[in-house]
This record gives sequence, structure tokens and C-alpha cells, in this order.
Amino acid sequence: MSKAYRVGILGATGAVGNELLELLESRNFPLADLKLLASERSVGKNLPFKGENIAIEAVNENSFKNIDILLASAGSSTSKAWAHKAVDAGAVVIDNSSAFRMNPEVPLIVPEVNPDAAANHKGIIANPNCTTILMAVAIYPLHKIKKIQRIVAATYQSASGAGAKAMAEVQAQASAILAGKKPPTEVFPYPLAFNLFPHNTPLNDMGYCEEEMKMVNETQKIFGTQNIRITATCVRVPVLRAHSEAINLEFAEPFSANEAREILKKAPGVKVVEDWQANYFPMPIDATGRDEVLVGRIRQDISHACGLELWLCGDQIRKGAALNAIQIAELLVEKNIVKPANALVSR
Amino acid sequence: MSKAYRVGILGATGAVGNELLELLESRNFPLADLKLLASERSVGKNLPFKGENIAIEAVNENSFKNIDILLASAGSSTSKAWAHKAVDAGAVVIDNSSAFRMNPEVPLIVPEVNPDAAANHKGIIANPNCTTILMAVAIYPLHKIKKIQRIVAATYQSASGAGAKAMAEVQAQASAILAGKKPPTEVFPYPLAFNLFPHNTPLNDMGYCEEEMKMVNETQKIFGTQNIRITATCVRVPVLRAHSEAINLEFAEPFSANEAREILKKAPGVKVVEDWQANYFPMPIDATGRDEVLVGRIRQDISHACGLELWLCGDQIRKGAALNAIQIAELLVEKNIVKPANALVSR
Repeated sequence: MSKAYRVGILGATGAVGNELLELLESRNFPLADLKLLASERSVGKNLPFKGENIAIEAVNENSFKNIDILLASAGSSTSKAWAHKAVDAGAVVIDNSSAFRMNPEVPLIVPEVNPDAAANHKGIIANPNCTTILMAVAIYPLHKIKKIQRIVAATYQSASGAGAKAMAEVQAQASAILAGKKPPTEVFPYPLAFNLFPHNTPLNDMGYCEEEMKMVNETQKIFGTQNIRITATCVRVPVLRAHSEAINLEFAEPFSANEAREILKKAPGVKVVEDWQANYFPMPIDATGRDEVLVGRIRQDISHACGLELWLCGDQIRKGAALNAIQIAELLVEKNIVKPANALVSR
Repeated sequence: MSKAYRVGILGATGAVGNELLELLESRNFPLADLKLLASERSVGKNLPFKGENIAIEAVNENSFKNIDILLASAGSSTSKAWAHKAVDAGAVVIDNSSAFRMNPEVPLIVPEVNPDAAANHKGIIANPNCTTILMAVAIYPLHKIKKIQRIVAATYQSASGAGAKAMAEVQAQASAILAGKKPPTEVFPYPLAFNLFPHNTPLNDMGYCEEEMKMVNETQKIFGTQNIRITATCVRVPVLRAHSEAINLEFAEPFSANEAREILKKAPGVKVVEDWQANYFPMPIDATGRDEVLVGRIRQDISHACGLELWLCGDQIRKGAALNAIQIAELLVEKNIVKPANALVSR
């Protein structure tokens, strides 16, 4: 008897929404039904899925009645507006926005790290921030062996972090600059092509931006400890869709680079990419479209007896967002945390 | 009685060479004569200077006879081949390559940091690596007040670090990619446009690349201490000509961000660029063509009681190379470390 689920996507037309659709198809998620929800603006559009065209419906109070799992990827305000209504209608919501991530009643899940937390959900499960997910996948296997004490991270974040329009804007900016024209800046406050700037999310009183504080707070929540001290500098770079991160880790005791490498080679969701002879390490263009977080340049920190340095690249839209959400959905299915659509159970 | 000097530029046709010429003109360096030296390949070319065209001469054994200050910017092997010959002929060589930087007999100078070391020269003075210079200018004013214990740096290095051809290649790559074509890779091993990769200099046994070890070793030499532990991750990004760096500093005692900011506002060669309301901080496009190292996002490190985070951008060709060399030349003049061309002293 195979189980099947009625899935809804809220925000199907965005970069992450498109990727969710692709992953539901390519991973053959056990679907009983698929409903695509968006704002009124997108009504009339269709999106292809398994050879069919699925019409986009405007989200409203009655949208969630026949949905078992709602994948929400339409931003924080949309999630705040609709997530509880979906829960009330019986859906489990996997929310890709930041709306509920730090809510103590909402599990924040990276399936490679804290899958067991999913069982504690009260209707909403949050998908972490992209930079947080990528870092968590790469460093948790090390943390399991020897506890991480402190992280100093610097990020190299692609345009996709600001959505599909931002990706197009960087390309349009590059075209304009190459033609000697002024680059358009609608999505980003400053030109990103041939330039870069600190992540333009609001700053707190300590001078950290929201993106940096997500890395701090979400990582502590996912790892289930306040004992990891974290600092980060988040920077947008003119790359299309994979994020990179330079990560400095401090442990309480020495951790050899070779031991770390062997652990990461066997770690779920990680691919070690290191050709020391060819000076070939993870690059955004190689991480694009891939499920794994690519990790390389694993080396002893020469400035700290118990330090390790590593470098990672991961597809921001995929593992950084859509894939992690689908993996959470698969976890719900595998652990019977969500019930299949009874009427549609096939024999 | 004004002093004047006979200056030679070895490698005048490169990106740094061009900038040296521009700076000699714009800063009105007291020239008695200017000789442009290059390989046979460039002979026949002229370069404009103060409204004249100066012919490029092929460098040979007799090139250095009438030169007081030789600015060498043609790479390490050229410097190794000619620097000592220039010294033997009576010139003081300010060498922009890595050839002599770690030689204990050769002062390694950032004029804002260790100008007094210039007096100890034995004919050659080395100009540090670009990433090192930019970091040194920004952090030395803090180190003077409270000693830095450890630095964790991550860099965002522009194409100019690999020369003028590399800058053109990134633009050609961007054009190709936007047209759906394969990007050319002649200077760089991998596409840099819309991509990035760890700095492609040779790696040592510890897994650090040469660029990173330059930041480590040169900073210790310039600051005159082995007691600063330094680690760095150096990364090339698709930016044309200014480098950026995310710098985490650990001190032995707490250092308030406000105190650091006030110190840096008054520091030579530094411009604090921070508009916290507008989320506006140093960017490569703003640092390009400027003399100062732009510093911003100065903040207390929330992961370390004695830590500070800061972000900087600086023109890699200018302060990172040519300007620092010219400032060293100006220092030699100001401190009478090099003798003016006697026959040409004007009254």
C-alpha cells in the first residue's frame, strides 16, 4: 500500500517555487494532488508539471481544505497571512520564509542535522535561511565528533538570494556596464555586476544585518545549543545562484584536517571537492543545480591550535531553499508525521 | 633649492605601471628625468606623461646608470633578474613584486605603518602584496592602541590582481556568458565572470595558498611582530579593480567599536564609510580610483569579548600597489634617504 499526499505550493511562480515543482517531479514525491497557489496577479498562468499544465489559483480562505502539506515560499508577509489558516484547515506547513523560524513552537529543520525535531511540530515547520542551511550541512558532521566553540564566517552570496528578478537584474547590469551605460538598480540598492556590497538587510544595534543574525540564531537553534558563539559578515557578490562561504571553526580540542576530511567525505549532503594539485575547489558554477553542499580547502587553522578552516559552495535555491523543504516533506512522509490523503490511498 | 630625482619604471606598460605614471604626474613627484623600461616586446611604444610622449626602452645592463629611484613592477622573475644590477648602478629599487619581500635585508614598507624601516635599506625596498597593504592600513591604527592577537580574514579580490589582461578577460567572459557562449579562460584557470574561486596561487603543505601566506608573513614583518596570529581565505571575485576584505580581529582586552571608529576616522590613508541608516558601506566601485582604504561595518564581534569585525575596500592597483610604491619614493625624498640627482639640482 503506497501512501500519497495532497501538496500545495504557495508562491509557485518564484525562483524557489519553480525549483520546488522541479524537485517534486524529479524526486517523484508521492503526490495525490498538486495545487499551485499564488496572488491574484498570477492567476491565469499555468506551470508545467509531469507533462501537464497546472493552473495557478488565487490563494484564499478555502484554498487549504484539501492540502496535506503546504510548501510556502512567497515571503514572510504572505506566510504570516496564510500559514495559520492552512494549519487550521489541516495542512502541515513547511515555510520557507523567516516568519516563524525563531518561534520556539516551530521546529527549524535541516534534515541532515535535526530530523527528529520535525515530530514536535504544531502545524508549521520552518525551513532555515539559505546561508544557514549550507553551513549547517557542512559543519554539523564535525560538531557531532568534537563540539564547535566558535564560528567566524564570511559569505559570498549570489543574486538568487533576492529572487528571480535579482538574477535578471545582475545580468542586465552587466550588459549595461559592458555597453558603457548606467546599470539599472531596481531590486538591489547598488549595482551588483562587477561590484559587491555587504548584505543589504536591516542592521541591528550591534551593527549586524538580519542575514548575519539568521546565521547566528538559526544555527544555534538547529544545533540545539547556545554554546556555539558565531559571528558572520554577509556579502552579496555578482554570482547568479550559488552561495559560497569561508568558515573558520574553533573547537575545544585539536581537530586534524585529515580527520575532518574523512568525516565530511562520508557526511550526508556533502561532497568534498579538493584537487590540491590542480588548485581546484568548490565554485558557484559547479554547485549550481547540484543537491550537495560542496566543501573544500579543509585545512588546519595556522592561527589557532584547535581551529579548522573550510570553504563551501551550495546552490542557494536548491539545498539553500527548495530541496531542504522537499527533504522536510519527505521526512514527514517517511516518519508518518503527516497522514496521507485517506481517500486517495492506493492499494 | 628644490631636489629632483631621476626615476625609472621597469614594467611601465602593465596595469600598475600605468598607474605609477599617472601618480608621478598627479602628485607632481620631483622628477629630474623619467625613463620607461620594459622588455624588447614593448620597444617602439610610447606612453604619455605630462603632455609628452615618452619612448619605452628595452631594459639592459646599461639602463640603470642614471637612475636614482627604480620603480619595478614587471613581476618577480624580472625583478630577480634586474634589481641587483640597478642597485649596483646606484639606484634605490622600490620593488612591487614578491621577489624580495621576505628577505630580512629588505625593508617591507607601508608608509602609514613602518616608514622608519626605509632607512635600513641596502638598495632594495619591497612594496607589500595588495591585500596585505589594504589590511595593514586599516588595522595598524588599532594595533597601535591595543595589540592585535589574532586575525581571521576573508578576501574578495578583483581581477586586477592578475593584471590588465585579467581585467579584460573578466569583461570578455561576461559578454560571452550573456550571449550564451563559452567564456574564454586564458589568464584565469576558470571562468571568473558570474563566478568566483579560491585564489589560484600555489598551495603549501598546510593547504594555504601563496596569497594567504603573504597576508600572514608580510603583515607580521610590516608590524614587526610574530605575535599576531593570522589566518586568511583569499578568493577571486568578478570585480574589476578594487579588493574587499572581511576582517575579524581579536585583542587581548575589549576594544569598543566606537573607540575603534574614532581612531580610524583620524587614521592616515583610511576613510570610514558608514551610513547605517542607508545600509551604505564600502564597495569596490566606490574604492576604485581612490587613494584611501575605505573601512566600514566596524562592530563589536558578538562571538568574542575582545573581538572587532570590520569590512574594507581598497583600490588594488592604487593603494594596493602603485600608490604605496610612490609613497615609499616620497618617503625616500622627504627623509633624504635617496640623494637627488646632483647635476640636476635646480636653484
